[in-house]
Amino acid sequence: MAALRASHVLRPASCAARSLAARRLGLRPFSVSAARPASRIFSNEPAEPSVKTAIPGPVSKQYIEDLDEVFDTRSLNMLTDYSKSLGNYIADPDGNVLLDVYAQIASIPLGYNNPALIKAAQTPEMVNAIVNRPALGNFPPHDWASVLRTGILKAAPPGLNQVFTAMAGSDANETAYKAAFMYRRQRERGGPQVPFTDAELSSSMNNASPGSANQLSILSFRTGFHGRLFGSLSTTRSKPIHKLDIPAFDWPQATFPQLKYPLADHAAENEAAEAASLAEVEHLIKTHPSPPAAVVVEPIQSEGGDNHASPAFFRGLRDITARNGVLLIVDEVQTGVGATGRFWAHEHWGLDSPPDMVTFSKKAQAAGYYFADPALRPNLPYRQFNTWMGDPARALLFRAIIDQVHEHDLVAATARVGDYLFAGLEGLAARFPDQIANLRGKGQGTFIAFDSPRRDEVLRKAKTLGVNIGGSGERAVRLRPMLIFEESHADILLKTLEKIVSS
Amino acid sequence: MAALRASHVLRPASCAARSLAARRLGLRPFSVSAARPASRIFSNEPAEPSVKTAIPGPVSKQYIEDLDEVFDTRSLNMLTDYSKSLGNYIADPDGNVLLDVYAQIASIPLGYNNPALIKAAQTPEMVNAIVNRPALGNFPPHDWASVLRTGILKAAPPGLNQVFTAMAGSDANETAYKAAFMYRRQRERGGPQVPFTDAELSSSMNNASPGSANQLSILSFRTGFHGRLFGSLSTTRSKPIHKLDIPAFDWPQATFPQLKYPLADHAAENEAAEAASLAEVEHLIKTHPSPPAAVVVEPIQSEGGDNHASPAFFRGLRDITARNGVLLIVDEVQTGVGATGRFWAHEHWGLDSPPDMVTFSKKAQAAGYYFADPALRPNLPYRQFNTWMGDPARALLFRAIIDQVHEHDLVAATARVGDYLFAGLEGLAARFPDQIANLRGKGQGTFIAFDSPRRDEVLRKAKTLGVNIGGSGERAVRLRPMLIFEESHADILLKTLEKIVSS
Repeated sequence: MAALRASHVLRPASCAARSLAARRLGLRPFSVSAARPASRIFSNEPAEPSVKTAIPGPVSKQYIEDLDEVFDTRSLNMLTDYSKSLGNYIADPDGNVLLDVYAQIASIPLGYNNPALIKAAQTPEMVNAIVNRPALGNFPPHDWASVLRTGILKAAPPGLNQVFTAMAGSDANETAYKAAFMYRRQRERGGPQVPFTDAELSSSMNNASPGSANQLSILSFRTGFHGRLFGSLSTTRSKPIHKLDIPAFDWPQATFPQLKYPLADHAAENEAAEAASLAEVEHLIKTHPSPPAAVVVEPIQSEGGDNHASPAFFRGLRDITARNGVLLIVDEVQTGVGATGRFWAHEHWGLDSPPDMVTFSKKAQAAGYYFADPALRPNLPYRQFNTWMGDPARALLFRAIIDQVHEHDLVAATARVGDYLFAGLEGLAARFPDQIANLRGKGQGTFIAFDSPRRDEVLRKAKTLGVNIGGSGERAVRLRPMLIFEESHADILLKTLEKIVSS
Repeated sequence: MAALRASHVLRPASCAARSLAARRLGLRPFSVSAARPASRIFSNEPAEPSVKTAIPGPVSKQYIEDLDEVFDTRSLNMLTDYSKSLGNYIADPDGNVLLDVYAQIASIPLGYNNPALIKAAQTPEMVNAIVNRPALGNFPPHDWASVLRTGILKAAPPGLNQVFTAMAGSDANETAYKAAFMYRRQRERGGPQVPFTDAELSSSMNNASPGSANQLSILSFRTGFHGRLFGSLSTTRSKPIHKLDIPAFDWPQATFPQLKYPLADHAAENEAAEAASLAEVEHLIKTHPSPPAAVVVEPIQSEGGDNHASPAFFRGLRDITARNGVLLIVDEVQTGVGATGRFWAHEHWGLDSPPDMVTFSKKAQAAGYYFADPALRPNLPYRQFNTWMGDPARALLFRAIIDQVHEHDLVAATARVGDYLFAGLEGLAARFPDQIANLRGKGQGTFIAFDSPRRDEVLRKAKTLGVNIGGSGERAVRLRPMLIFEESHADILLKTLEKIVSS
């Protein structure tokens, strides 16, 4: 893993990349074919997007009409033919082929139909994992430790060496929350050997305190997103549409710093906003009637609109939580696995001690939470348990993903390409300041976003021009390319955005 | 699907089977090799269990010690070598091969390394689904309707024709609860066109009413189990160890009828218990300060100890919920997919109108909830949504499972073998009434349980004799064979239980 870690370091080539991109932007429209090297992994990837019909086209429309009879299609973005999608390109049944910088809501790491992943999916080991799905807590496969060590744990954040596996981001977060509640109550109780009281045993069956620990909470941040099941949704503060009509726990929320851009022009204001946020967190920890067992935070608030904070802010959060005996859970469901130019986004922060738990899913394809403190294993078996407790098939896939990231040095590549893309966007923003505002994600790989006054129109227009882009928050255009996104793809994206903002 | 449905009907052969098994029990120890026909699906399945070492043996112990460094092993039952497991037999790295009537907590439908499922796992379609995992709500595969119709929906309970897919039982239930809350609030609001109020929009972001609908609830039953995430755990009432230290919603619970056995000797008492339970449900619906948007119930309370109620009870529950405008969610996570001698256990009830939602997972390998009422699709997109929203790979596997169930008539076979097994157990219970009490599950396929005064010892002893059995509740020995469990396997199980209870 040392080699993999080393590869996360940002390359100094970024300045040159920036001026190159800026020069191009100033001089002429991007020339796709000339500058484009063949993709290193997908030698037969399309050279450029190809839009043949409106999207959805006539064939897709028929499929969608049929699908809607049995499955809600109102959030459908683009009906997809995955067998025809390749690398950075997503295809539909009408023959449209789009450059995909949304990547299944930031969850495809290495491109469609990646040959190495296809190989992994065809191994006897994978077939075994699919047809013999184990109840991992009761009947783990004999080689489960090996699968973890050569996969999920090989990619563990610095300082964390344990994992509890889950199915997706929501339950990864919720099981982490459960671990935090049990940890906190165990400490309050006086340690793992102190038995439960009769009052705890009986009240727990009535969903009442003290057994149910309704006096405790998880603290999250305004505009944060941590999932949509009942516990995770109680910490999600993204949009009313995510929360309306669903019962929620009365848990505290703190303001996430609202940074102003460009950062360099607002240093003092931003520092003050971060200080105020940290003060609010500490105040809530000390005074909220339901004190938090943990604080959960995203390195970059993603669904909430790509809201960033500085490494110093997160170091402060680590200090405050540690000082007050509150656990820090870093939700890396969207930021994890390389896209920010580090394998884990929180590696940018320079923490003295690691987060207590780090949750993951999406590009990992597997899910769960990492931790290190043995006390985060509850004091008795079956307290943190469910039937499947994860999925060995997805653990095998994550292992293959990690191997590919390593082999092709994709975290460093993403840092490099991200710098190139950011420089290009800076050039565009300078020329079209009304169209591209609050450009953010500098030095964060390809995890880049900007605000647009006509965001939804930009996304729609991009699709007609052959690029699939996602939005988040109220106004953000968020870029979530895969780790195989290269300078040549960035050129296509930049050219397309230029067309849109200049029109 | 009509043909598949017809095959669910119980066969009249059960009486003959019962007397045959009883005669065998009276006359001599079960003779395994003589009576055993070759498995119809696994021609090379072992003829009988083979126990070579203590379990765990020396090799397993080394693996477990290693695994425990990175993964909690305290709930480990048996380290498993899945590559050597076959059909009804589970193997470990020490060469022990056990008849498995626990089946990964009732989640393996068709045996280990089932050849038809291996074939399905090797198709290009499956490989595609594994390496190109879609965000189903945004970018569904063009053939998703076809995959659903030839798979998940082909097995839909009578009267239900829609599905929302999920990952596992817990989130299947929780998304069903969310649908129920949105449905209820929409009705209270005056219909799908009535906009949210400003108070709702703003309070939802603070986890407060009226936006968060904290005034509503889900009603569940004492000793029921519906999962272990925060919403599902609030409806789970199985054991304190499942609930301690985890915050829970203050939702109502009703008493599940505690039937006395043999049923024929306690008809009046049992009828009274069911009437009291139904009266309690109606009382809670009408008077609880947080009225339920839905009642959730298992056809047989499984984790809670295999607690049954009569078809009349469930018809009464359907009547009460319908009369009071409360949705009925039937949790078929453990009972579904054939083991009770019907594809869905609630098909035993003879309902006039179907449940509003039926949740599934485990033996389906896929998960989700079925429904029919279009109003259960929320009034706006993105209200019921998450990144993956299920897993097409598991949908393909469920399709292959359904095809196998159909091809080999496995629901009818399970009904037949269940009757045979139940008759054998009745014979044992008659001879050892102190050891086998409250035998239950008659006419419910192989979904059979009994109480034992020394339950944990029975399970341990069974393992040393080559049979892997699970427990549930406080005293129940629960039998959860796969759908490929035949009379010959029942003979081995009965012989082993006879050895244990007679010792």
